[in-house]
Amino acid sequence: MVVSHCSSSYYRHIVQSPYISWSMEGDYRGLSSKISVQPFATKLLNATVTNFPCLLQGGQHKHKKGVQVLSQNISPPSFAVEYLDGREDEYNGVIIDPESLPSSANAFASALKASLSNWKLKGKKGIWMKILQEQVDLVPIAIQEGFHFHHAEPGYVMLTYWIPTGPCLLPASPSHQIGIAAFVINEKQEILVVKEKCPCTCSGVWKLPTGYINKSEEIYDGATREVKEETGIDTAFLEMVAFRHAQLVAFEKSDLMFVCMLKPLSTEITIDEKEIEDAKWIQVEELIAQPYYQQDELLKTVTAICMAAHQNRCYGFTAHQLTSIFDGQPSNLYYRT
Amino acid sequence: MVVSHCSSSYYRHIVQSPYISWSMEGDYRGLSSKISVQPFATKLLNATVTNFPCLLQGGQHKHKKGVQVLSQNISPPSFAVEYLDGREDEYNGVIIDPESLPSSANAFASALKASLSNWKLKGKKGIWMKILQEQVDLVPIAIQEGFHFHHAEPGYVMLTYWIPTGPCLLPASPSHQIGIAAFVINEKQEILVVKEKCPCTCSGVWKLPTGYINKSEEIYDGATREVKEETGIDTAFLEMVAFRHAQLVAFEKSDLMFVCMLKPLSTEITIDEKEIEDAKWIQVEELIAQPYYQQDELLKTVTAICMAAHQNRCYGFTAHQLTSIFDGQPSNLYYRT
Repeated sequence: MVVSHCSSSYYRHIVQSPYISWSMEGDYRGLSSKISVQPFATKLLNATVTNFPCLLQGGQHKHKKGVQVLSQNISPPSFAVEYLDGREDEYNGVIIDPESLPSSANAFASALKASLSNWKLKGKKGIWMKILQEQVDLVPIAIQEGFHFHHAEPGYVMLTYWIPTGPCLLPASPSHQIGIAAFVINEKQEILVVKEKCPCTCSGVWKLPTGYINKSEEIYDGATREVKEETGIDTAFLEMVAFRHAQLVAFEKSDLMFVCMLKPLSTEITIDEKEIEDAKWIQVEELIAQPYYQQDELLKTVTAICMAAHQNRCYGFTAHQLTSIFDGQPSNLYYRT
Repeated sequence: MVVSHCSSSYYRHIVQSPYISWSMEGDYRGLSSKISVQPFATKLLNATVTNFPCLLQGGQHKHKKGVQVLSQNISPPSFAVEYLDGREDEYNGVIIDPESLPSSANAFASALKASLSNWKLKGKKGIWMKILQEQVDLVPIAIQEGFHFHHAEPGYVMLTYWIPTGPCLLPASPSHQIGIAAFVINEKQEILVVKEKCPCTCSGVWKLPTGYINKSEEIYDGATREVKEETGIDTAFLEMVAFRHAQLVAFEKSDLMFVCMLKPLSTEITIDEKEIEDAKWIQVEELIAQPYYQQDELLKTVTAICMAAHQNRCYGFTAHQLTSIFDGQPSNLYYRT
């Protein structure tokens, strides 16, 4: 699906078009037709600011709202119509600025209805609306208007609305968590292992340090960080020797676990007592002799691959920083040189 | 962080403990103290079902609720207290069943308050509450009680509540989308390329078929599917020659793009006219001669890696199905054999 591909840079090439600011079709009785736009706008803002809650939230705005007074021969509605702030993306979609959302439910509901009609008239496609946790009262209103959950994380939920008929072509929500397993082997051919305090099935088993990468963290940085956190050992990334893809392991989400070969830069172990019961350097024979390893095809295979890579009998991927003009940002390309 | 590791199987080893069903501390005036629990429960269910909305949602329940009448010398409250249904996970957490949530906001709010107090008393840690899109009115109530957004996708939002003091140790929300790029080269040394209809920066450029994998789809299956969808060409997966990790490309989410070497099993191109402008077999010289390629470090490097792999000058990872006793499910381990 093409949009999926494009979505890898979907939001890096936002067309910096002017914000779609709220406009008014006015009933101008009592206003001189000679009044220019700016004084009218100013007067209106001063006089009726409480009717336009989004005007109260400009603290973090990067732009100024414009006010357009449309010609009076435009047909009704003959009352002020407020639109939500949004900027266009390169896919003929609109991205709503959460900081511009009205704080009042009524103002939001009316602005959303007006904006949806406006976007439909303009032939817009995908609408993206990020709603912050403190704005959560707006979520049911948006869902009621036909928005859907897209993704969320602590602090916000992202809602989307696909306007065209036919299947939604917006990119899917994030589907995977990225984990690492660290294979650290020293000059004495000893492997760094830990026993975890968690009550999971591997409790009491000597195993490789593992964990998830942090948001916006490179994979190999996540590996060295986890080893440092759990054991106090400093390491340097050598190569990625394998990765495991497990589907739908957690609430319909999937898991990629990258096995990283790391070179130890220190020897003294200092465990993280909150999470680690014990850590030590172990000979591979003792590691794989554990019943848990003997029963587990995955652990046995990963250990064999790591030993083969360590002994230069097979090779993994190394990491190479590259920037693509496609999304204009640095990234890491992992491959065998 | 240990829990991150464990979370790769976090929900595969749910302790199948009995559901924590709602119980009552009753004001039993008018009821004979000789009435046994079951008749009392039945009488109550029949008489006051509308006071217990969750009882109306049993259609898809996999279990029956129990009713416990506690001894009358328990201190107040002297009114019926309803708890939310939840099952324990192996991390001393609770997973709420969305099908059991009261449909009325008031009933939900009171049950949530009562349940939180109960979980705190019991020393529970992480609370997981999935709220379906049609239950969206409950979301602001839960956020008000201290829940946070965790993740979402069309159809539901997942909220979490970390009870202990100290940092939340629940696994993070999914952070990555998984894309593929397909390198399909035939016996004439021609590479299968497409021009996409999307208005992105690569518009008009001959490029490899790309896309995102579907939910619960294996990576190599996603690659062969995308090639088939975009060009009509049947292919077989050979190896994974590289992958790119790009961070925070879309709304604070990241992107992993796997470059898959595929063997063509057919020759006749039939494009997907909705998304593809054109497709053809191209010589590598013509592909890389395009100005866009000449300017783009990533595309040039990926093409060089693919040609080297095709000419056996370097090697990628092949896929091997393995089952781990850790999460008890089949998965694919990618590595160099």
